[in-house]
Amino acid sequence: MSLRIAIIGGGNVATHFFRSLGEPIVKKIFVRKREENGHLPLALLSESKDLRTLDLSIIIIAVLDDQIINVLTTYHFHSDQIVLHTAGSVDIDIIYQRHSKSGVIYPLMTMSKKDIIDYKQMPLLIEGSSESDLSLIIQLAKSISTRVAYFDSHERKIVHLAAVIANNFTTSLLLDVERILKKNHLDKHLLLPLMKQTLHKVFSSGGIKSMTGPAVRNDQKVIDAQLSLLSHYPETLDLYQFFTHRIKKDQSESSDI
Amino acid sequence: MSLRIAIIGGGNVATHFFRSLGEPIVKKIFVRKREENGHLPLALLSESKDLRTLDLSIIIIAVLDDQIINVLTTYHFHSDQIVLHTAGSVDIDIIYQRHSKSGVIYPLMTMSKKDIIDYKQMPLLIEGSSESDLSLIIQLAKSISTRVAYFDSHERKIVHLAAVIANNFTTSLLLDVERILKKNHLDKHLLLPLMKQTLHKVFSSGGIKSMTGPAVRNDQKVIDAQLSLLSHYPETLDLYQFFTHRIKKDQSESSDI
Repeated sequence: MSLRIAIIGGGNVATHFFRSLGEPIVKKIFVRKREENGHLPLALLSESKDLRTLDLSIIIIAVLDDQIINVLTTYHFHSDQIVLHTAGSVDIDIIYQRHSKSGVIYPLMTMSKKDIIDYKQMPLLIEGSSESDLSLIIQLAKSISTRVAYFDSHERKIVHLAAVIANNFTTSLLLDVERILKKNHLDKHLLLPLMKQTLHKVFSSGGIKSMTGPAVRNDQKVIDAQLSLLSHYPETLDLYQFFTHRIKKDQSESSDI
Repeated sequence: MSLRIAIIGGGNVATHFFRSLGEPIVKKIFVRKREENGHLPLALLSESKDLRTLDLSIIIIAVLDDQIINVLTTYHFHSDQIVLHTAGSVDIDIIYQRHSKSGVIYPLMTMSKKDIIDYKQMPLLIEGSSESDLSLIIQLAKSISTRVAYFDSHERKIVHLAAVIANNFTTSLLLDVERILKKNHLDKHLLLPLMKQTLHKVFSSGGIKSMTGPAVRNDQKVIDAQLSLLSHYPETLDLYQFFTHRIKKDQSESSDI
């Protein structure tokens, strides 16, 4: 069955769904204001809210989580169209309660418009309200990525939580690193091989076996010296104390076993 | 000039210096107890503390930071031998005060014995007490890696601090992610493409531009839902609140500008 897709939204996730699917598959992109979406092909943009007469197999709602409900209450769909959202933390029921052919396609990825993303490696977590809807959602997902997996709404929320911790919090932590190095006129790229190895190690051996450094060795001399280097960075000092405490605690608990 | 190296120590860093240099270059490895170092070639191991009569150009002290002073006070070196330590946070002076031909070779990497490390890409931060000693230390470092750079003791301490934050704290954070996913019977490898993209983004665009997620969007509904998912994980709840607060704060400060 050939896929005929519409996307609702013009933001980061919508843009990447458009790019990963391409123009022959994406028939229309529905946005609030055409003139604000110059990064998308003008010919595909529409401000209409009535999709009932369009020959579409799947409609992807790719808007901010708290806007999904607005879309569902203001747009009109045909009962044969499958309507999906793309949010990690939103239940499938938000659609299903209003439209029976419903589903979710959640890309487990951080996305800004200008990012270049290897879509084939990007996990897509899917859910569908029926077997037949799910089989079309699988077809859609597989046309984008080789990593397609079924997750129910609760599992997806756990994965989204894990992604927020792993991505957002690591980014926040690396922002501190960037600031300290910049203030000392040192190049952050020096740390890239270490960080690649860190990921490789944690994902292959696990976090406990991967831990090195002064906190896990309980090397108080280095810890004190590093705390004093941070005396002019109160935020990072907090961060340092927070993690040093938890790594020491983790270590003493795992050696108790 | 041909390199004739001895290593003092049999731990993680010593082992990787041996592996990266190889047996023709490494003439001897000095350890406390030969029988405890079966991971190193028996023929190279020695328990002697007198290196004065050996034809060595460089001696690498690769022991725990607080053991360096013990090595320096119990081992005997010839005045022509260059003595290096490998520690990020220890000043070159710890050697220089006792032995004039001194230096540092600090590998900016996390190292456990069984790790496979791409030595050619591993930054080596070097320091030397004189121009002529430094040129031999450069020769040594370049025989291991293509990323060799001169850093004085203060700069090296800043880089070590940055490495502790970037590596150890990220590892701690990913340990929480691992536990939550495991408890829910979900595979952590699902997050690997996201984490690779996170590193790529932070190192190419910087931390501020890379930030996505509920905290930076101030999406309190998702934040509250995620906090409630963490009600049985008090440590991770702390972590979540700590970072959500700092990301929001960072965001409001950068939009003030």
